[in-house]
Amino acid sequence: MRLINVAAGQLGPIARAETRTQVVARLSALMRQARECGCDLIVYPELALTTFFPRWFMEDQAEIDHFFEREMPGPETRPLFDLARELGIGFYLGYGELTSEGGVINRYNSSILVDKSGAIVAKYRKVHLPGHAEHEPYRRFQHLEKRYFEPGDRFDVVEAFGGVMGMAICNDRRWPETYRVMGLQGVEMVMIGYNTPVHNPPAPEHDDLSLFHNQLVMQAGAYQNGTWVVGVAKAGVEEGVDQIGGSCIIAPSGEVVAACTTKGDEIALARCDLDLCNSYKRTTFNFDVHRQPQAYRMIVERKGRNLMADGTPARPGK
Amino acid sequence: MRLINVAAGQLGPIARAETRTQVVARLSALMRQARECGCDLIVYPELALTTFFPRWFMEDQAEIDHFFEREMPGPETRPLFDLARELGIGFYLGYGELTSEGGVINRYNSSILVDKSGAIVAKYRKVHLPGHAEHEPYRRFQHLEKRYFEPGDRFDVVEAFGGVMGMAICNDRRWPETYRVMGLQGVEMVMIGYNTPVHNPPAPEHDDLSLFHNQLVMQAGAYQNGTWVVGVAKAGVEEGVDQIGGSCIIAPSGEVVAACTTKGDEIALARCDLDLCNSYKRTTFNFDVHRQPQAYRMIVERKGRNLMADGTPARPGK
Repeated sequence: MRLINVAAGQLGPIARAETRTQVVARLSALMRQARECGCDLIVYPELALTTFFPRWFMEDQAEIDHFFEREMPGPETRPLFDLARELGIGFYLGYGELTSEGGVINRYNSSILVDKSGAIVAKYRKVHLPGHAEHEPYRRFQHLEKRYFEPGDRFDVVEAFGGVMGMAICNDRRWPETYRVMGLQGVEMVMIGYNTPVHNPPAPEHDDLSLFHNQLVMQAGAYQNGTWVVGVAKAGVEEGVDQIGGSCIIAPSGEVVAACTTKGDEIALARCDLDLCNSYKRTTFNFDVHRQPQAYRMIVERKGRNLMADGTPARPGK
Repeated sequence: MRLINVAAGQLGPIARAETRTQVVARLSALMRQARECGCDLIVYPELALTTFFPRWFMEDQAEIDHFFEREMPGPETRPLFDLARELGIGFYLGYGELTSEGGVINRYNSSILVDKSGAIVAKYRKVHLPGHAEHEPYRRFQHLEKRYFEPGDRFDVVEAFGGVMGMAICNDRRWPETYRVMGLQGVEMVMIGYNTPVHNPPAPEHDDLSLFHNQLVMQAGAYQNGTWVVGVAKAGVEEGVDQIGGSCIIAPSGEVVAACTTKGDEIALARCDLDLCNSYKRTTFNFDVHRQPQAYRMIVERKGRNLMADGTPARPGK
């Protein structure tokens, strides 16, 4: 057995006026609860330090940049790192990342993995940015991730907590490619924070299936790669927008083994044996024996039905 | 609306001694039932003309080849094609395919799609052959698909029945790549026949999850590609081996909309509107807008954690 005791550290809504310091106090309270329950690791949501700001169309760059972190840890987030080191617990944290190199500024929807010593051991930048880039007035609220962030371009894994750990963020969890690229690197636990409105303005006919889809994609990703999946929401009604909860921890069997039941700050706990991955990775999903990459080429050659990967029109018969 | 009325044409066990003519009579009875219920298409299982012979280790090639079809239709299967034309109903049929060209013999685990005129409009050869190639005496029964078949190397789609139709077979359904390659070609209905023993000798600890996994992977494949999925079992205790049932029809939402409840010959029915695919293909899973192929390269570069796609050892850092 290679046990990691994990907490899904769900957050309720964060108001626009809430300060980083206030949010860090909430995160710290969850961290203390998790440690009292013997956890080695707590997984927080996507963009866990602020309200989910891509719901607003903004043109003032200073106003936008207020939602980003220029350093990690910074003055307001350092107490969380200090507490982690003091308690001896690691964490996954999602946040808006602003980098500045040689006068060039970039912005990403990012997450970090911090070990029990308070050191950052991995960073991930969200690959699958959902939503749109321009203001769409028909929507009751916007989803402007394609406006405010640039996409990341890779899914890495890291050896930490005695296993092979991977990260993804929100919309990444709907794409089987996300889990597969990490599965090919032997991932044993995928941590995923999310902010998911119940209402999807372009397809409101599926709003009642939001929680079902959330669980379905994470269960399939877990089973098809023989990995633990920890999915953690920022939940509840935030600045007038209802977001799903449904935070849960999923075994390599695809079974949900822990789940939050509120829409507020709440931890759900699971005792995760990483060795449970083995019987899937060595049998049904022994990739080295059973995958057939020559039949998959279209997955990287094409972006979609109409476009090749480089953005040119798809060639007939390809 | 673009409706196809579909029957999942589940079969109970086929004994080793049962003749093709006897099996075709059973298939014909299901076809008549389906047509009486207004169906346009009936989907039969994998290797639907014989018992699931890869459970036995055989060395006599003539004995093995008895389970294969040298022509399709042949004398014993032609009545099914004739009935389809007479009734005006199409079908998907799985069978062992033996080809002979220039003295070279090849064997595949194949399926065909036959239209309402009784004409074959598409053929598929199973890509993901499960099991093993050598006799493994520890198993109570064998799963020698890697011995008796060569793998296919492509997933195509075909315009038929007013939509974009695709085929897969059994173990293919566990692999997200299967659905994705067809999804990139706009598939609207994936037909999948299967034979799945409840007991998996290398990993008996998951036998109780067989039906859960069966449904999970097909539901995820449907939702993540905005396509209908029709999964059809050969079910029940066949030559001493218990096979799962669980035949079902899944909407592009991932919801199961029809299901068999026995382990015998039985049809389950669904009125499938192919236009229900659109709201997924145009929003959350609009691949041309949201996929990020540059991050997926490992999917085709690698076979597994240890091997590159060409079978050489995986390079560190790749």
